[in-house]
This record gives sequence, structure tokens and C-alpha cells, in this order.
Amino acid sequence: MESKKNLQEIQGALYVRDGVKGGHDGMTIQPKKFKKTKQDTIDIAKLASEVLNGQRTSLSKAITLIESSNAEHKEQAQKLLQELLPYTGESIRIGITGVPGAGKSTFIEALGMMLCNLGKKVAVLAIDPSSTLSGGSILGDKTRMEELSRNKMAFVRPSPNAGTLGGVHKKSRETMLLCEAAGYDVILIETVGVGQSETYVRGMVDFFLLLVLTGAGDELQGMKKGIMELADGIVVHKSDGDNIQKARKTVREYRQILHFLQPATPGWMGKALPVSSLEKTGLSDVWEMICQFEQTMKDTSFWKTRRLEQTKEWFHTMIRDSLIDSFFQNTDRKIQVKSLEEAILQGEMTVAQGVSKLFSEGAR
Amino acid sequence: MESKKNLQEIQGALYVRDGVKGGHDGMTIQPKKFKKTKQDTIDIAKLASEVLNGQRTSLSKAITLIESSNAEHKEQAQKLLQELLPYTGESIRIGITGVPGAGKSTFIEALGMMLCNLGKKVAVLAIDPSSTLSGGSILGDKTRMEELSRNKMAFVRPSPNAGTLGGVHKKSRETMLLCEAAGYDVILIETVGVGQSETYVRGMVDFFLLLVLTGAGDELQGMKKGIMELADGIVVHKSDGDNIQKARKTVREYRQILHFLQPATPGWMGKALPVSSLEKTGLSDVWEMICQFEQTMKDTSFWKTRRLEQTKEWFHTMIRDSLIDSFFQNTDRKIQVKSLEEAILQGEMTVAQGVSKLFSEGAR
Repeated sequence: MESKKNLQEIQGALYVRDGVKGGHDGMTIQPKKFKKTKQDTIDIAKLASEVLNGQRTSLSKAITLIESSNAEHKEQAQKLLQELLPYTGESIRIGITGVPGAGKSTFIEALGMMLCNLGKKVAVLAIDPSSTLSGGSILGDKTRMEELSRNKMAFVRPSPNAGTLGGVHKKSRETMLLCEAAGYDVILIETVGVGQSETYVRGMVDFFLLLVLTGAGDELQGMKKGIMELADGIVVHKSDGDNIQKARKTVREYRQILHFLQPATPGWMGKALPVSSLEKTGLSDVWEMICQFEQTMKDTSFWKTRRLEQTKEWFHTMIRDSLIDSFFQNTDRKIQVKSLEEAILQGEMTVAQGVSKLFSEGAR
Repeated sequence: MESKKNLQEIQGALYVRDGVKGGHDGMTIQPKKFKKTKQDTIDIAKLASEVLNGQRTSLSKAITLIESSNAEHKEQAQKLLQELLPYTGESIRIGITGVPGAGKSTFIEALGMMLCNLGKKVAVLAIDPSSTLSGGSILGDKTRMEELSRNKMAFVRPSPNAGTLGGVHKKSRETMLLCEAAGYDVILIETVGVGQSETYVRGMVDFFLLLVLTGAGDELQGMKKGIMELADGIVVHKSDGDNIQKARKTVREYRQILHFLQPATPGWMGKALPVSSLEKTGLSDVWEMICQFEQTMKDTSFWKTRRLEQTKEWFHTMIRDSLIDSFFQNTDRKIQVKSLEEAILQGEMTVAQGVSKLFSEGAR
């Protein structure tokens, strides 16, 4: 591993602490730390080759560049990504969601360690600001994948935007591509199943895994509507000790629900499995399920079809988001929308009149 | 009922055939039939008062005006709607969906007739171009609610855009408001559970009803993902003859699924009921369920809260749709998006580069 001093020389003003050795907290870089100076110029070709060589510090730096909101950095980041694009796509992309307290971090660490021991290079990314990976665990669980972070086969990258929802998480897809270029075989993407992010994650992964606890009905109450129907597999977690019997019952209940619901992936019947990350049971079943999924999907070539569809959808979503973002960037317009909304809710004007007023005044 | 001659005098160039007496087909008016002439001026105050008086031919005319794509008509339609807004909101709005062949038209006619006999004024609207109401029944069922159409307590309005998907169905919400102003107590909105329209309908109704047949698992395969989680109630239809035992089993299966899923309406546990429109059994149970729902929701004031939320969401959806529509109106832009999409899928550029190229060239 390069020394911090060397690293800083390579990066110029782009200061990135080595997050692998120092635990994930050290890797959280706030965009405000970027100062635009002469030294800022990055040798993109060099960085690209370092990423391709699997240098973790360079991968960290590349991700920080991707996440930067600085215009120059953005352009450099896209150049870097374009150079690396031909080397992406070889991993298996797995999304993992579940309500807070389901034990996502513990599960990801246990699964990740098992995969490392199987000789797989594993990258872990988090989407949500409230993710346990960034220390936001509601149940006070302080597990931060320390064991996995120290493993040379693993790369653990925390949520880019702890505490903010500024859309930085939209870079997760590009971060995933960087990890693929760096040679990671399995990408695990953690998200919390309570917001919008799981739909976003579903749109960028091959396999989507839902983590639940025993007591299916109660558990689902706290879950976002429709999340069951995004899942290719369900893990009934903490299936250990006194909980084993209850967990088995819950597995049966989820199997029944999965039988009724339309599959998240055409041609794949979703499975429910009991897992204990504590006792390390059921983890190999999960991996076997995912491998079986991969084989089935590659046999029907749906694997490739879905990835192309996902890229296309990503492009169109970005077009729509850009249009809407730029329209609402104007503060006056936000105020105007609010006051039109008020008038509509009071029954003073129709919705169509409100929209028409907004656009006619916006055009002035 | 007014004669066709009188009707034409009132409407000027706006020619609308009387759809109630003549069956629904006669009511389908293509926008191209509207010619802008001097005679086109409509007395909005007069039309508004006629609608308020419950004159069905005037209601038909008002709906045709709402559906017109002519700019002048659009403005008049909004003026009319603004006048009528204070008189809207008193009905119960019910969305009804189900796969083709579930017998939606037959069910709506049977339910509608029962409600008319209870002294309710019932309006029936259809959203989908493929709706059975516009004659698109896949199973060749020619039932077109003829009995209900002839009932003086009922108003049956077919899909406004048979065969086209030009967004005219977006006027359904406004059509619903017109029916409310005309004094209809119950609005039944039919949609086919295979497209985007059921989410749209869910966003404009109080109660959402899903029609299914026996064999829950198989049935759901043909249904859109997530549709189960939109439903406040499920009707297992054609529960008659040899089918009764199977239907009872299916009801139990759906009850179990509903138990696991998060309720479509907070505070309301979805119900599944067997119904035969043929033997007229179970229809009063459906109505009782809906009345119970109304009471429960009004007790918690969620009834009003949701309606305000729906109006707000409608406003924001219309803003977004207008932005995106106007951006893509340009034919060159469509071609450009297609070619950028191609380049992205070939790996020639990143998605962000594609978006950036689109907007920089669009600005020139």
C-alpha cells in the first residue's frame, strides 16, 4: 500500500485519506474540501491505469472524483469513466435491502467474508444517508464491517452523502462501474428499504435481495409498498438460537407470498432462505441461489438484455431529472409553485390553470 | 331528454351525439371533428348551470369540451371547470381494475344497477383505450352496460380515446369533477390492470377495487407488478355455479396475501369477497365494504387529507409531464436522444456525457 505522502503527491489538491486501512469513516470526503487550484489537474490516463491495476487508493480517489460536484472534476470524472467503460460489466451486481434493524451490515460482512474466502474480490457500496454503513444504525449496532474492511480482497465504500440528500447517491452507478474496472467480482450495494432508493438500486443491479426478520406480517408493515415485488430472494435473518423455529415458519410464509406475486425477474421464481450471520449458517445457500440465478439468466440472455435496459432507463431518468432540476433551480419558481398549489387546494383555480399560469409566467 | 336538434342548437359547432340513449359507441367523438368557426362560442355560464341541474346532454357536451385538444376549447373548458369546482367533491370515487376477461363491464353494470335501485346516481367512466367499455373485450363479451346506460339514474361515458394513447385520458380526472357537479353520488372508473393507467386511477379515487378470477397464483401472473398493493378490496368474480368452491378457496388465498402486504390505505385492512354478477350475489357486500371504508376514513379525516394530497400530486405530475412533453416535442431532439442512446449502449460514451451533450446542443 502506498504511503499517505505518496498518495497526496499523486492527487495534488485532491486529498483523500486511505479508507481501507483506516476504517470506512476516514473515507467520507465532503465536497467542500475540494478547492479549485492549479495543482488540481489530474492525470486521467494514469489514474485509469492504476484503477485497472486494482490499486485501492486510486480507486478511492477515482470515486471521490466521481462524487465531486465541481464542474471541472465532473468533466474529468466522465473522461475517466469513458476510459474505463470497456473494462466494466464483468461483476455480479447485488442489491441488498431491509428495514433498519434487519442486520444488513452484519449480513453483508458475513457474506462478504465468505466470498473473499472463496477467492472473490468483493466491493461494498451504500446508497442511503441513513445506511448503517455510514454509522446510522437505529438499533445502535456499531458493526461497521471492520473485519471485511481489513480484508485485502474487499473494498468497502461508505455512503457518499451521510446526512444529505443532494443527489450524490446518483453517482452510485458510476462508482459501481469503477469497482468493476478495478476487478471486483461481486458488488454488494446496501440500501434501506424505507425510501425511494431501493427502486433506484433495483434499476442498477442484477439480483435484489430483501432482508427480513421473523414475523412476516408485522415486519412488512414497516416496509415500503411494493418492495416485496422487487426481490429476487428473501433472507430471513437472525435465524439462530431460540429464533430458529420462528424463522422457519417465516420462511414458509414468505415462500407462499413469493408464489403469489409476479416475479421481480421474468423466468426466476423468488426464493426465501433462513440465514444466521452470527452462526454463519445459510450464507452458502444464498450464494448458491445467486449463482443459480446468474446461470439461469445468462442461459436465456436476459442478463444482458436487462443490463442494456437498465442503462437506457438510466439515461432517460437522467434526462428527466435534469429537466426538472433545472426548472426548479430558480428560487422564485419554487415560491410560485407553492403559491399556485395553495390556490389550487383552496379551490380557487383548476390544476390545469395553475400549470398554464406557471409556464406562461415562467416564459416571461 | 332533449331532442338531437335542440342539442345541436345549444352546442353550435360542437356536435355531440346523445350517448345515453344510443349506446356508448355513439358518444366517442374524435377531436378532429372539432372545427374552429364563429359558431364555436359556448355560453359557459349557461352550460355550467345546465350541468349543475343534472342535464345529461349538457354533461356530455361539457366532457367533450374538456377532452378537446383545440386551444380555445381548452380555455373554455377550464373556465367551466372553475365555475363548477365549488360543487365537486361530494361523491365517492371508486376505481375498478382487473385483467381482461375478469368481467369488469358485467360487474360494473350489476353493481351500478344495484346502486341505482338504492337511489344513488351513478356515473361510469373508462380510462383505457383497450377497455371493455369501448368495446375492446378480449373474450368477445359484447356486454356494453346497455341496461345501465338506459337507467335514468346512471351516466355511462366510454373511454375518450379509443385506439389512441394521446394523453386524452389525462382528462379523466376533470371528467370525474364534471360528473360530481352534475350530482352523481358514485363515480365508477374502469381501467385495465395491465398498463400504467391503474396507478393513475389509484391517484384519483378514494377506493380501489381489484377484480380477479379463481386461481390466485395463475391469475396474478398476468397482472402488473404492485397492483395487489394498490387495492383496498378484491372481488373474486364469477363466483357462481361449479365455480363457487374454487372461488371460496381463492378468496381465502387473497385474504392471506392482503394480510401480509402493507395496506393501500393506511388504517384500512383490505378485504377479499366472492361475487357473482350473473346471480347477483355478493354485490351488497361490496357496497357495504365501501361504505364502511368511507366511514372509517372520514372518522380519521384521512378521506380529506388524501384528496388534498391527490390534487397536489396531480399538479406536480402535470408540471413534470408538461416539462418533459415540451422538451420532446421537437422531432430533432427525439432523433438526437435515440442516437445518443445508441452510442451509450455501444459503450462509446457515458450516460452523463450523453445527457450533457443533449443539453448543450439543445441550448444552441
